[in-house]
Amino acid sequence: MISICLLGASGSIGSQTLEVMESYPHDFALTAFSVGHQTRKISPIIKRFPSVSMICVQEKSAMNKYAKKYPNLRFFYGNEGLVSLVECSHAEMIVNALVGFVGLVPSLTALENNRLLALANKESLVVGGELIKDLLSRGKGKLFPIDSEHVALAKCLAVDSKNVKNLILTASGGSFRHLAREDLKNVTPEQALHHPTWKMGSKITIDSATMMNKTFEIIEAHYLFDYPFSKIKVIIHDESMIHSMIEYKGGTYRLDIGKADMRVPITYALSQGLCLYQTYLCSDYRQFAEYHFSPLSAKRFPVIKWAKKVIAKKGTFGAVLNAANEAAVSAFIKGKISFLDIERIVSILMKKHANIEHPTLKDILEVDAVTRQMAAKLINK
Amino acid sequence: MISICLLGASGSIGSQTLEVMESYPHDFALTAFSVGHQTRKISPIIKRFPSVSMICVQEKSAMNKYAKKYPNLRFFYGNEGLVSLVECSHAEMIVNALVGFVGLVPSLTALENNRLLALANKESLVVGGELIKDLLSRGKGKLFPIDSEHVALAKCLAVDSKNVKNLILTASGGSFRHLAREDLKNVTPEQALHHPTWKMGSKITIDSATMMNKTFEIIEAHYLFDYPFSKIKVIIHDESMIHSMIEYKGGTYRLDIGKADMRVPITYALSQGLCLYQTYLCSDYRQFAEYHFSPLSAKRFPVIKWAKKVIAKKGTFGAVLNAANEAAVSAFIKGKISFLDIERIVSILMKKHANIEHPTLKDILEVDAVTRQMAAKLINK
Repeated sequence: MISICLLGASGSIGSQTLEVMESYPHDFALTAFSVGHQTRKISPIIKRFPSVSMICVQEKSAMNKYAKKYPNLRFFYGNEGLVSLVECSHAEMIVNALVGFVGLVPSLTALENNRLLALANKESLVVGGELIKDLLSRGKGKLFPIDSEHVALAKCLAVDSKNVKNLILTASGGSFRHLAREDLKNVTPEQALHHPTWKMGSKITIDSATMMNKTFEIIEAHYLFDYPFSKIKVIIHDESMIHSMIEYKGGTYRLDIGKADMRVPITYALSQGLCLYQTYLCSDYRQFAEYHFSPLSAKRFPVIKWAKKVIAKKGTFGAVLNAANEAAVSAFIKGKISFLDIERIVSILMKKHANIEHPTLKDILEVDAVTRQMAAKLINK
Repeated sequence: MISICLLGASGSIGSQTLEVMESYPHDFALTAFSVGHQTRKISPIIKRFPSVSMICVQEKSAMNKYAKKYPNLRFFYGNEGLVSLVECSHAEMIVNALVGFVGLVPSLTALENNRLLALANKESLVVGGELIKDLLSRGKGKLFPIDSEHVALAKCLAVDSKNVKNLILTASGGSFRHLAREDLKNVTPEQALHHPTWKMGSKITIDSATMMNKTFEIIEAHYLFDYPFSKIKVIIHDESMIHSMIEYKGGTYRLDIGKADMRVPITYALSQGLCLYQTYLCSDYRQFAEYHFSPLSAKRFPVIKWAKKVIAKKGTFGAVLNAANEAAVSAFIKGKISFLDIERIVSILMKKHANIEHPTLKDILEVDAVTRQMAAKLINK
């Protein structure tokens, strides 16, 4: 039995994490969770998981309201509340299913406190990869990815990490994969939010359409598996059935095949990479059908180049990439800028940035804030 | 430097073996070869490989003619000549690229004499699997398959043979894969000889169209890798780019991907499974395109069921399956019987056969001869 603190319980990954935990009531106990603004989800989750003792919400007013309703539970609020939740819950595992930059500090807190960190918040690694690596090497904390591609790679590398030629991340190509660049000018947020193979949150769905999600995943793979940029490749794979692969010297490949179902990587992370629990979700070779692959064009998806820069230069480039992207995606969803403006704004800010090497958390927080201000100016121009 | 005796130097696998050997003049020396009836190939091969000292042909008259022409070389003839070639050549490795039953005794001779056996003649294992296993366990001989599927499996199993769920052989489906059974009645040998993905000898091309080739390969895989029939699966894969795969528990697969090029498995066998030499033939993930898979229908390809019987009952069923098939395929190529008669004749003879358990070579030779006589009667009816 392992105690779990779930950050981001109301989102797509969070809901599926609860589903997985419910399937194994003797293995996992939910002791704490956060829901952000989605406070109406609190009562149903408490009902399903009576082991919960602490909850974090976004607003102070909401905290006060629910603290009255559940006097036996301890409540926190805001971004500081997330940190307190990690520290106070004493849960053995922190599942970080938060979206965006806000996930960084809770990730660092989890590792500082020597917890197991099941990480769906890839921004933590994009922005704070060096800090996380440092904490992992110094402390007793462990990191398990919740990302279908990285779980696929971890599963394959766990059994054979010799003679690796390349890690190959598969990419669906996102909502506009069949459109040429000239057709991208007038696409709408509604069109962008319609992902061909995965049902996911809106931020990551837009990131898939721009290929920023894969850019982030290259950086994530670099920090998780310690391979250089030159050995982390991307291939477009339309069906999202092959979740990534390892290319070995000698022409053999190891890959993870299965339906696009986030419960598989979630179960992998929750079981600390043992894969013990996921047989019910396993693929069957008899269902193999058609798999399409095509090369990733850096002309069609220019944001992919930033992965190389972030990995090569490190420092605060990851913070800039993420902050610029978060601001731009949010503005695009609100209809303030066009789809192609996302990559334009990211590009301007990445080119402008004066890197800070080996940044502290304070450096990163400052760069994040400054980048958002600069992005806001570009958006409102 | 390893000395090689090549049986079947004039066929498709034989020619490609010579090509591979020529690419590595410091690693392999051809000391003996056989060409069957294709004696016009003798002089060119001698020119290319001055290390040759012994040659076997099919006919005595041909032997006499060439023995006069090349007085410094030693010549043999006929099926007994193949055995003498193996024994007298003292080559460290015997490459058996003979077609059909005639390959069995040379295979056994190679292992009896503790040689390395690179085996393209899958009939050796279909007919004499038990004898070969016995020789391998008692002697110092070693067996390396030359079959794209089995080399793929061997490469994958060499690095990870734990938690194997299934060995999955890929099958192109052969020349008539897009035809229904009712459309097979009037197909011609010319149509059957037009394989969609592989350029091979005529016998194996017909065996691909009936799926007898895959039936043989299941039996071959059983003897090579020691897995039961229940764990050896077949999947139709149109492009012949994935040469077979291992399905592991937990949903990961290991597979060998590359162009349909027999030089890859030949190089694998010649280098005794070290894969040292084949980088120049390796696949590149950037060339991945479309891969189609579909289940193998035992209704559409009924001969596949005989693999189960041969593996379960062993004894002389493999000899019957092979002899009936050889006779029927030969008759079909000559236009004496229809395509569907091949499986009809095989079926009649397999059903009639009274199995001899743990057969000696003598038993197998007798069953082979009797089955051919019975097949001839059915063909001429």
